[in-house]
Amino acid sequence: MSDLKSLFEPRGVAVIGASHNTRKIGYRVVDNIVKGGYKGGIFPVNPKAGRIAGVDASRSINEVIGEVDVAVIAVPAVHVLDAVKNCARKHVEHLVIITSGFSEIGNNEEEREIVNFARDHGMRVLGPNIFGLYSGRVSLNATFGPSDITKGSVSIVTQSGAIGIAMIGKTAYEGIGLSSVISVGNKADLDEADLVEHLMHDDDTRAILMYLEGVREGERMVSVLEQAARTKPVVAIKSGRSARGAAAAASHTGSLAGSDEVFDGIMKQCGVMRAETIEEALDWCAFLSRAPEPKNDNTVIITNGGGVGVLAADASEKYGVHLYDDASVLHDAFGANVPDFGSTKNPVDLTGAATAKDYDSSLSTALNDPRIGAVICLGCETAVFDAKQFTDVVKKKYADFARTKPVVFSLVGGAAIEQGITTLRQNGVPAFSDVNDAVSCMGVLFGHRRFMRQPVKDPERVPLDVQIIGSVIASVKGDGRNFMLANEARQVMEAAGIALPESLVAKNFGAAVEAARGIGYPVVMKIVSRDIIHKSDAGGIALNIENDDEVVDAFESISRNCKEHVPNAHIDGIEIAKQVPKGIETIVGARRDPSFGPIVMFGLGGVYVEIMKDVAFRAYPLSRAETMSMMGETRSYPLLLGARGDERKDIETVTDVILRLGTIVKECPEIADIEINPLVVYDQGEGAKAIDVRILLSQNESKG
Amino acid sequence: MSDLKSLFEPRGVAVIGASHNTRKIGYRVVDNIVKGGYKGGIFPVNPKAGRIAGVDASRSINEVIGEVDVAVIAVPAVHVLDAVKNCARKHVEHLVIITSGFSEIGNNEEEREIVNFARDHGMRVLGPNIFGLYSGRVSLNATFGPSDITKGSVSIVTQSGAIGIAMIGKTAYEGIGLSSVISVGNKADLDEADLVEHLMHDDDTRAILMYLEGVREGERMVSVLEQAARTKPVVAIKSGRSARGAAAAASHTGSLAGSDEVFDGIMKQCGVMRAETIEEALDWCAFLSRAPEPKNDNTVIITNGGGVGVLAADASEKYGVHLYDDASVLHDAFGANVPDFGSTKNPVDLTGAATAKDYDSSLSTALNDPRIGAVICLGCETAVFDAKQFTDVVKKKYADFARTKPVVFSLVGGAAIEQGITTLRQNGVPAFSDVNDAVSCMGVLFGHRRFMRQPVKDPERVPLDVQIIGSVIASVKGDGRNFMLANEARQVMEAAGIALPESLVAKNFGAAVEAARGIGYPVVMKIVSRDIIHKSDAGGIALNIENDDEVVDAFESISRNCKEHVPNAHIDGIEIAKQVPKGIETIVGARRDPSFGPIVMFGLGGVYVEIMKDVAFRAYPLSRAETMSMMGETRSYPLLLGARGDERKDIETVTDVILRLGTIVKECPEIADIEINPLVVYDQGEGAKAIDVRILLSQNESKG
Repeated sequence: MSDLKSLFEPRGVAVIGASHNTRKIGYRVVDNIVKGGYKGGIFPVNPKAGRIAGVDASRSINEVIGEVDVAVIAVPAVHVLDAVKNCARKHVEHLVIITSGFSEIGNNEEEREIVNFARDHGMRVLGPNIFGLYSGRVSLNATFGPSDITKGSVSIVTQSGAIGIAMIGKTAYEGIGLSSVISVGNKADLDEADLVEHLMHDDDTRAILMYLEGVREGERMVSVLEQAARTKPVVAIKSGRSARGAAAAASHTGSLAGSDEVFDGIMKQCGVMRAETIEEALDWCAFLSRAPEPKNDNTVIITNGGGVGVLAADASEKYGVHLYDDASVLHDAFGANVPDFGSTKNPVDLTGAATAKDYDSSLSTALNDPRIGAVICLGCETAVFDAKQFTDVVKKKYADFARTKPVVFSLVGGAAIEQGITTLRQNGVPAFSDVNDAVSCMGVLFGHRRFMRQPVKDPERVPLDVQIIGSVIASVKGDGRNFMLANEARQVMEAAGIALPESLVAKNFGAAVEAARGIGYPVVMKIVSRDIIHKSDAGGIALNIENDDEVVDAFESISRNCKEHVPNAHIDGIEIAKQVPKGIETIVGARRDPSFGPIVMFGLGGVYVEIMKDVAFRAYPLSRAETMSMMGETRSYPLLLGARGDERKDIETVTDVILRLGTIVKECPEIADIEINPLVVYDQGEGAKAIDVRILLSQNESKG
Repeated sequence: MSDLKSLFEPRGVAVIGASHNTRKIGYRVVDNIVKGGYKGGIFPVNPKAGRIAGVDASRSINEVIGEVDVAVIAVPAVHVLDAVKNCARKHVEHLVIITSGFSEIGNNEEEREIVNFARDHGMRVLGPNIFGLYSGRVSLNATFGPSDITKGSVSIVTQSGAIGIAMIGKTAYEGIGLSSVISVGNKADLDEADLVEHLMHDDDTRAILMYLEGVREGERMVSVLEQAARTKPVVAIKSGRSARGAAAAASHTGSLAGSDEVFDGIMKQCGVMRAETIEEALDWCAFLSRAPEPKNDNTVIITNGGGVGVLAADASEKYGVHLYDDASVLHDAFGANVPDFGSTKNPVDLTGAATAKDYDSSLSTALNDPRIGAVICLGCETAVFDAKQFTDVVKKKYADFARTKPVVFSLVGGAAIEQGITTLRQNGVPAFSDVNDAVSCMGVLFGHRRFMRQPVKDPERVPLDVQIIGSVIASVKGDGRNFMLANEARQVMEAAGIALPESLVAKNFGAAVEAARGIGYPVVMKIVSRDIIHKSDAGGIALNIENDDEVVDAFESISRNCKEHVPNAHIDGIEIAKQVPKGIETIVGARRDPSFGPIVMFGLGGVYVEIMKDVAFRAYPLSRAETMSMMGETRSYPLLLGARGDERKDIETVTDVILRLGTIVKECPEIADIEINPLVVYDQGEGAKAIDVRILLSQNESKG
């Protein structure tokens, strides 16, 4: 864990490359620091010295008198290394390198040299290729973005500079307060994980927003995010969902975008809520940073229009908001507020005749009734709905709600309504013109609450005979292959304690018959050859072998087929395996993801994965409970639960196999990818069998 | 087809129940008509006469001198019938009944009496329980909603009064022009279909927005919507997606909400675009009513921030917008606009250094290049991005774009940016703060274009021997059942030309053996009994019967099992059927939907439908092409196309069977529901077999 305290609370800040030209970044940063009200030492550095934004500049950082914990570097790329060297002499702790022209344009070496030098001299690097850093705790706006930042309790960590600057502007306009904004750019040293690790312990931060394009060192990020989401809500926007988007992301930053499904699964695992748009993410964070914790999940919709009530009920289902449905309690609570032609059912319909006074009393009811946990309050423009009066009522009521009970508002109508929404928002009230926007905020609040209430799941580590696996790998590599043959994969599975059907490899008729008798009929027979990967295409598989004669026939025809199909194939023999009874076919796998390191995968067999793309992912290590959550995300999971009158299947064994595969990939860095397809699963207690196992080694040398 | 010309262009309008009290609906309607600038006759009717909103009132409509084509009725419910009778004497053509207190609170009879009287006297009824009608063509605001309505080319048809009024307010604020607004309320006579049928021929209307809670007379609606969507874009918001929402919708209006999946399928069939929220629907309609037709679908994203570019690329995939990807053309076109460190790939990245001038030139390029069909222009707040200058450039450029090429804008940033968006929107420019909102508008434009370019698909009618089916139905009913036995269902299938495996019903061993020999082994055997619906639960099915002995054994065991399971069951015999070879199992069905009448359904067999809910629906009648579109919507459809190296299946026969089932339900109103599960489908040209057919009759007497 890195200590970033002095990055966020520096005693003094130097700006190397401070400029006299007010249009240059080097001027704007100094100006923003001064205007932002930072009380520490402000040290512009410019060879010509003079005064910059009202502050005396030094010719060199080494001429600065006073402690400099942070140096903002905004000199041209070619001068950055020199500046870093000067900073080392001044014992600077953190470098905020705004300058671009490094790895984002392929200039990796210079970036690496700078970071290596900095780390060797006890300095950490933020950037390069960033717009700077804002730290609300010391009112430090060391960015070249807007000078007007509203202090508050949302922290933003952004990979994109442009989006970061735009979000600062948007939050200021919307009255959303920020505790910090950090641009991470090329992440040459400090990355999101380092920053989130700091922010999770920062009392000023009540919600964290991350804008990500790609993930590197994902293993560490997963463990940090899991911890962070248990302390406060974390919201992520990840661009590059689509193939085209991923290509665009890769072209404009230096990082791999990764598979969106993998990212999605891992964010669920970490309890991170994923927003689709910038507006959604900001709305969520603003709400999450302000809303009190709900006492229970009984949510009530109060409306003056049936139509918007129904739209809100639809949205509640979509966003996982539980609508309270005890009709007698609701009637008891709201009977006095609702006219005869209205409804005390949820949505509570005050009818189009409702005035601001009616809202006042029903909001009071909802606020004071301990059976109600949260409130969604809707208003439609009507002849009697006075937006101004309503706004006043809400402002007054919200003061009480803000301490007691989560509430969101949505108002639909014309200019007076829109003015009301703007006024409410500027007063920190969660008010929206779109019903879905309001309900989705409530949804993430409850989603975070559910995550926080889950018991901490300790990742499960499975003991593994790494030595046996290591010797198999060595022999495969010695043979110049990067894939394992059937008998090699079997040794790995056995070392990991994963059950396969009994089998033997036979080199001739006699051995084959003997093997089949020993195993017991029926058996299946498969070619074993390093030259034949697609066994069934080559006619290299025979099923339902019932007796000795059939073994001989099959041996002959498999040999003949394969020789025809791949004339010079080297045949290692023919595998004779017990033919297992039918069960539910699943696919389980583990692989080393370029972003996240070891990940595991689950799906139902064959068609479900290949055609319906019905799979789920998690990062390894993970707990048994989380493995089961992953499986439960697939649409076909009910088949394992015993749908259609069938028995419940041995889900425990599937969980176990998945954890074992994850362990193999984690412990054996030379293994890139393992897939069992199918893993045939039997009724509960009766286990599962790995029928076909494919193991690939890393193409390059292991990276550890 | 009803002629509603005089409803939208009346020579004179009476307001029965006009009030002197300015706070009453009866005053507001008169006041709105006067203020709206309607040039026809305005006739307030009030027993006390006098002047209302500056107009002389009559004591009774029969005292009015002048033509009255429309009478707005706002008297209490008990007086409505009398008012309607007076209107008949005055030869009024259209009644706009604002008054509530009819079917929406269970008072169906009085509503029916009013409508029957009106129809008998040549009058059509809008409402009751509505807020009125706005017709831009004659500047008639006969509503009690806002008096300020912006004239334009979007028409709104709404079932919810509150949402309608709110939308009027919102459109006025947003500068979205309306050509008409019609509140349909209880739809006792005129419904959405009647109004859309009128609006599709209305040259003032360029886009139609419908807010629906439930659908009645859905058959007519489907045919009207299909025609309407070929003339202009139609956008629908349907509330009650969720179970809870549907319950709320049913409680506050008088109509059934229907299954959301059915509604969704039918809207696709009709080319109607479904919006999720009010804001989305209004944004779409405003854009669709103004945008020129795209010349081609090559869309280009222009941005100054890579991050928002990626978000827009993601959104383009989501909303079906084709991003132009000819790199050499793009480089040729934008090379001069983009600096070295930017990108001419799509998204075209002008970089954070882009000024309003750079946008000006790249927008000009995009506008003038005939290879580019549409433009998505994004801007992030930066140090050099001047929102004011940008807004001016866009306003100027948009004047050209508006006639030539669809364009949307999205800007992210602070107060200056938000001000820019507001200014642009008020000038009719499609500008949004959220990237997805901008891209989704482009998506519906292209979606509508694709629908318009599809050849008109004539619904396919299949000849049917209705007489045979009728006699089977008569015999089932004569037997006091509402479900058909296997042999009855077989007769219906044969009358409809749907192939079943050869089969016979045998009453004893001998007949069974004879039947099996005649059919040819292997056969399956199934109990035939009106008392045993779940045959396999009762042990009433035997598969893989290979020879005479097995027939005898199976006959015995089926008889014994069934007698044990249902002691007093009446056994009609045992069916001996050819055991068909394996194929792809599908489920096809047709039923009478309470909202839409005959509908058809398709899904892949067993697990896909039951666990994965992977089914699609359409309204009948439909074309072959549309039937195939329906099948193509299921995620498992690739199995029929011959996924995983398999042969393409006989999709044509499945299409044919679906159309035949639809025809049966359409032509035989006494049949409520038919399902073939499974319909086993073979390779192309080899047909399909209906293995199990379930046919249910309507519980009540046929409603025709």
